[in-house]
Amino acid sequence: MDVPLVHKLEGSLLKAYKQDDYPNKMFLAYKVCMTNEGHPWVSLVVQKVRLQISQDPSLNYEYLPTMGMKSFIQASLELLFGKHSQAIVENRVGGVHTVGDSGAFQLGVQFLRAWHKVAHIVYIISSQKELHGPIFQDTGFTVYEYSIWDPKKLCMDPDIFLNVVEQIPHGCVLVIGNIIDCKLTPSEWAKLMSVIKSKHIFPFFDIPCQGLHTSDLEEDTRILQYFVSQGIEFFCNQSLSKNFGIYDEGVGILVVGAVNNQQLLCVLSQLMRLAQALWLNPPNTGARIITSILCNPALLGEWKQSLKAVVEKAMLTKEKVKEKLRLLGTPGSWGHITEQSGTHGYLGLNFQQVEYLVRKKHIYIPRNSQINFSCVNANNIDYITESINEAVLFTEGSEKCLPKETNP
Amino acid sequence: MDVPLVHKLEGSLLKAYKQDDYPNKMFLAYKVCMTNEGHPWVSLVVQKVRLQISQDPSLNYEYLPTMGMKSFIQASLELLFGKHSQAIVENRVGGVHTVGDSGAFQLGVQFLRAWHKVAHIVYIISSQKELHGPIFQDTGFTVYEYSIWDPKKLCMDPDIFLNVVEQIPHGCVLVIGNIIDCKLTPSEWAKLMSVIKSKHIFPFFDIPCQGLHTSDLEEDTRILQYFVSQGIEFFCNQSLSKNFGIYDEGVGILVVGAVNNQQLLCVLSQLMRLAQALWLNPPNTGARIITSILCNPALLGEWKQSLKAVVEKAMLTKEKVKEKLRLLGTPGSWGHITEQSGTHGYLGLNFQQVEYLVRKKHIYIPRNSQINFSCVNANNIDYITESINEAVLFTEGSEKCLPKETNP
Repeated sequence: MDVPLVHKLEGSLLKAYKQDDYPNKMFLAYKVCMTNEGHPWVSLVVQKVRLQISQDPSLNYEYLPTMGMKSFIQASLELLFGKHSQAIVENRVGGVHTVGDSGAFQLGVQFLRAWHKVAHIVYIISSQKELHGPIFQDTGFTVYEYSIWDPKKLCMDPDIFLNVVEQIPHGCVLVIGNIIDCKLTPSEWAKLMSVIKSKHIFPFFDIPCQGLHTSDLEEDTRILQYFVSQGIEFFCNQSLSKNFGIYDEGVGILVVGAVNNQQLLCVLSQLMRLAQALWLNPPNTGARIITSILCNPALLGEWKQSLKAVVEKAMLTKEKVKEKLRLLGTPGSWGHITEQSGTHGYLGLNFQQVEYLVRKKHIYIPRNSQINFSCVNANNIDYITESINEAVLFTEGSEKCLPKETNP
Repeated sequence: MDVPLVHKLEGSLLKAYKQDDYPNKMFLAYKVCMTNEGHPWVSLVVQKVRLQISQDPSLNYEYLPTMGMKSFIQASLELLFGKHSQAIVENRVGGVHTVGDSGAFQLGVQFLRAWHKVAHIVYIISSQKELHGPIFQDTGFTVYEYSIWDPKKLCMDPDIFLNVVEQIPHGCVLVIGNIIDCKLTPSEWAKLMSVIKSKHIFPFFDIPCQGLHTSDLEEDTRILQYFVSQGIEFFCNQSLSKNFGIYDEGVGILVVGAVNNQQLLCVLSQLMRLAQALWLNPPNTGARIITSILCNPALLGEWKQSLKAVVEKAMLTKEKVKEKLRLLGTPGSWGHITEQSGTHGYLGLNFQQVEYLVRKKHIYIPRNSQINFSCVNANNIDYITESINEAVLFTEGSEKCLPKETNP
């Protein structure tokens, strides 16, 4: 067979970082939360449960059914929708235990290709660059991607979201990524829903790290709650790797919202048929750890506390970065840094400034300047803020991208 | 969406077994080895390593790369091909860490659809019913399946294998399942290879439980060794769940045999692109346990001993079943039971006899009468053999399927 080599499998930024010989280089674009010591964060309660599980002689290690671990799915749905969710009571939401970080999307997209026959077009909207596009593309969908971050106004703009929904053709799929910072008014919500209903748009939500945005588990799924209350059909990728710190097990669920229980069972049966061919049985370890935590009130409390600590630390770091830039007299307003919730956020730098940081200062950040604030710590914050200051001064006047001080 | 329900997701035999209210019902068709107590077998050394791992504070739980755990792939390839394999030295075999029991086939089939453009036709040959057909079918392949078990002659017939290869059209894919009991002479091997080469047939091997056939790890991959020594391109599904007893982690590798290192790197890069969309990161736990065992000579020795014990017990059970049938005076010759290696084997019953066992005796065995001999133990062997005797007597004369005593 004559098979060509695929280049650029790893993100090119990470590749460039790894190839850099500079001793004090730093990478601020990790997807997972980092500890002060620069290791991926793991909730302490996970370590405890992992040990308990390995010492439990009563556990069996049989194949899980294709659908996955039932108690894990149940506990995760309750986490997502709330214990007393009407949709759970009415048996019109369910899920299939999925594999890795893209398994839920792969499974959902395969289903949509087969059964969502109106239009094989998908619109992806999020506050960040998403990885789902190629999955849809490989399956024969036409993909359009939008970010709700406005780099001129330096804020998440609800109008971008509303405009995208307005222009979507009839019967398309709409992937709704992380848009928590995009505040909609009740009348905007209502308008959005009426457009989605009238155009038969199929929403596919992505909840990759519930609890790591506002540290409030319910607040982080508010948009999903609204959709489920309206009784429409949807899919949701619920990933539980990042918010527990079980990265290497890729624990997730493809959540299905249906109009009634009968439709739910039909959709789940089709998904199981697809999952049989994809992996047959999902892995157990991560699901077992998470279920043990979610089903035990004391452990659940510990986990919630650990999430809160991560988010609070990141928000404090944002405050510190803003304050240091203020003290340095860096031109521009930096309020947008603390206005964004969660561990990640846009610095609001233009392309030249980003290039300056990467090339001159060996600080690796993506082109759109969205960084992981948990990578900023007491050891590197001064170097980072001084470098940002330098980058802004260096490029000052050459491009008018930052608003003037009049915008507090 | 108007989505129909999929019926028959679970094997209908297992479903019927579960629905049976008879207290002494038994299911003899489990795929995994069972202990005397009727639980899935787990190698003791796995339990030990699992505990060690959970107590090791130095381990990190970061995402694995898409390719998977490098040391796991290396150790597994050495297990498959031998530590000093020429193909490993020449860097023309490699692998991608896969997910679940069907992940390696899914990944391989997706690759073949894209790059093996000669013919989208697959021939599956094995001693047993395989589950891979639907994966090929869903991806657009035409599937033909053959068993090398001859129910008339009551033996594995190499001629069936050779005839299938003879009739395969140019450029097809040939899945070679478990055919260890199908002994080929050196000249038959050579003939086989020349047909495969001249017709550009692409072999896709399945090694689902190395060590659980003859208890000799090398002997169980003899056919693969022969192919790799010939320097041809192939894929191999190497599953490591059953031979370690880590069923719930579905640990596997899609092994790639290439003509040289350059081609290998190209194929692996394409597979990684596909794996990114399928699951992005494979799970860690199972691979970590297996790597710890394979890379430690003492643990490796313990594991080999545990495999040997399982196979010896199954072979002893086969002897006992044969002897009990002889003592009962059951018509027919039962030598074929002990002539088959490994934990599974054909009883050599006809359809009527199987029906009798299932309906009258509540002993659930598949239509082809292939059973898992590790499900037979001191508590049920008498009931099973007496029932087989009854079934044979009941149907005697009605069908001449069993050979007469003249065939020892």
